[in-house]
Amino acid sequence: MSRKLIVATAQLGPIARDEPRSSTVSRMVALMTEAHRRGATLVVFPELALTSFFPRWFIEDEAELDSFYETEMPGTETQPLFDAARKLGVGFYLGYAELIVEGETKRRFNTTILVDQTGEIVGKYRKVHLPGHYNFEEWRPFQHLEKRYFEHGDLGFPVFETMGGTMGMAICNDRRWPETYRVLSLRGAELIMIGYNTPVHYPQAPEHDHLQDFHNHLSLQAGAYANGAWVIGTAKAGREGGCDLIGGSCIVAPTGEIVAMVQGLGDEIATAEIDLDRCKELRENVFNFTLHREPGDYGPICAGADEREAERARVTRDSIITSR
Amino acid sequence: MSRKLIVATAQLGPIARDEPRSSTVSRMVALMTEAHRRGATLVVFPELALTSFFPRWFIEDEAELDSFYETEMPGTETQPLFDAARKLGVGFYLGYAELIVEGETKRRFNTTILVDQTGEIVGKYRKVHLPGHYNFEEWRPFQHLEKRYFEHGDLGFPVFETMGGTMGMAICNDRRWPETYRVLSLRGAELIMIGYNTPVHYPQAPEHDHLQDFHNHLSLQAGAYANGAWVIGTAKAGREGGCDLIGGSCIVAPTGEIVAMVQGLGDEIATAEIDLDRCKELRENVFNFTLHREPGDYGPICAGADEREAERARVTRDSIITSR
Repeated sequence: MSRKLIVATAQLGPIARDEPRSSTVSRMVALMTEAHRRGATLVVFPELALTSFFPRWFIEDEAELDSFYETEMPGTETQPLFDAARKLGVGFYLGYAELIVEGETKRRFNTTILVDQTGEIVGKYRKVHLPGHYNFEEWRPFQHLEKRYFEHGDLGFPVFETMGGTMGMAICNDRRWPETYRVLSLRGAELIMIGYNTPVHYPQAPEHDHLQDFHNHLSLQAGAYANGAWVIGTAKAGREGGCDLIGGSCIVAPTGEIVAMVQGLGDEIATAEIDLDRCKELRENVFNFTLHREPGDYGPICAGADEREAERARVTRDSIITSR
Repeated sequence: MSRKLIVATAQLGPIARDEPRSSTVSRMVALMTEAHRRGATLVVFPELALTSFFPRWFIEDEAELDSFYETEMPGTETQPLFDAARKLGVGFYLGYAELIVEGETKRRFNTTILVDQTGEIVGKYRKVHLPGHYNFEEWRPFQHLEKRYFEHGDLGFPVFETMGGTMGMAICNDRRWPETYRVLSLRGAELIMIGYNTPVHYPQAPEHDHLQDFHNHLSLQAGAYANGAWVIGTAKAGREGGCDLIGGSCIVAPTGEIVAMVQGLGDEIATAEIDLDRCKELRENVFNFTLHREPGDYGPICAGADEREAERARVTRDSIITSR
């Protein structure tokens, strides 16, 4: 049985701070429709795809902050995405901010879901590698408050048997950590989908700003190759809220080759036919994990989990916005 | 205090099967001398630098096999390298086949040593990720018998405080496994030196032959970037024993950029000034391990060490050439 499918990376251009969900969702449905016209049955949207990348702002008003999160999925405003999926027979990866209200407490995650071609949610992942910082930092031209606005993802790196293959998801900064791809691939992932919002300017090391596109592709390509997995990376791109975001959304083969890439910084798709069986070209040979990995020598990689958790617990935030 | 040093990748062209050590060592001393002339104080030679890459041959005669190994280091034939190091003030990384005779048993490793600018051995590493197979396989145009001719390295991934920095070593196939760089970097490695012998033709997946150079650089560059470490990769290159080996020896910055590369497939050096303090540009920011790694989610990476060891013990070889 053929295990080929046509997939699309569905890049979004900037989303205004006050752009309503209805507008964003319409743009996404348009991309899904175009992807369908080109034969795609799976579409990957960016991280936090429904709103502007709000962690760049220090938001003190809790109601305003909450307005960037979804409390249900699908909700009234996101239902059209699910309807389109069912109507077109196109599955999708969707990144969004997830808010869970439990009595007096609120839990917040940087989340992505996988929806199949019948419009059912078949997978969920919550971002593990949260970049940035916890509190307002005056010196920055813009903030990166992901550690403030989200909890560390509590689902690990799950994989999902769906749409003819074993699917994995990651989000933005996860893609820079080789461990992400490795854990997913050890669990059998054949296609790893990754949405991102990546500023061109990195305030702590501006001497690397010109390397942002290179680092993005280097990470995606190395993650694909070293695991013999397909990788789809999808940006929110362009000048958003005064901040330039890189594009470069692409589809990467298990060989590490980029086989499709967008051409601009706006709403745009790029598609490719991918054969999930091609993973075997690597996984049964140079990256045959059973024959060639040496876990007895990898101990330090997994050490220090308790210390990490303690460190996270020690952090004080200058305003309490979650239950933690 | 400045932590800059000038380093060289010292690529070797092919070594004939019957080429004596004296010839190989002369070629290496010539490269060291040229590196010294260009200001270098540290030179990285290839894997198994003293002989032809003998794992491509199935060698049944034990005396012949033993002739490719060193039983002492330095030995009479390799002493000139150590003399040159002391005279020129140039440290070096040297890959060689190591044979330890212990009574009736022989132990064999694919080894590298680090020698400082006074000619003293200051570090040793034995290859962890042995590629290839255990027994003769008729269908192959050439063999890759590393799993037969070497034991799994028993020193882990050590680092060494020497020559002004924290140094790590790896060998050939190690460079394709992100765990190699990560373990070394968690232990503080600022410069990781890696020699290799890599055939252009990969018999199990010849459809990837045209990607060998790309995969080499992708692995070295991603390993450097994801750990904020300098990486030096050095090939034995060219047509050796009827087998084409890739070149592409290079010096990679902690940003993942190739900052120096050889131009051919013969004996050749490329040099760069490297500032070990540049590692901080990554390690104190995007790859600040303490702030951003999540070892609690990496469990599967370190799992299965016992099974791996049992698997290794189960393998039968069609001729006993080590004590194992």
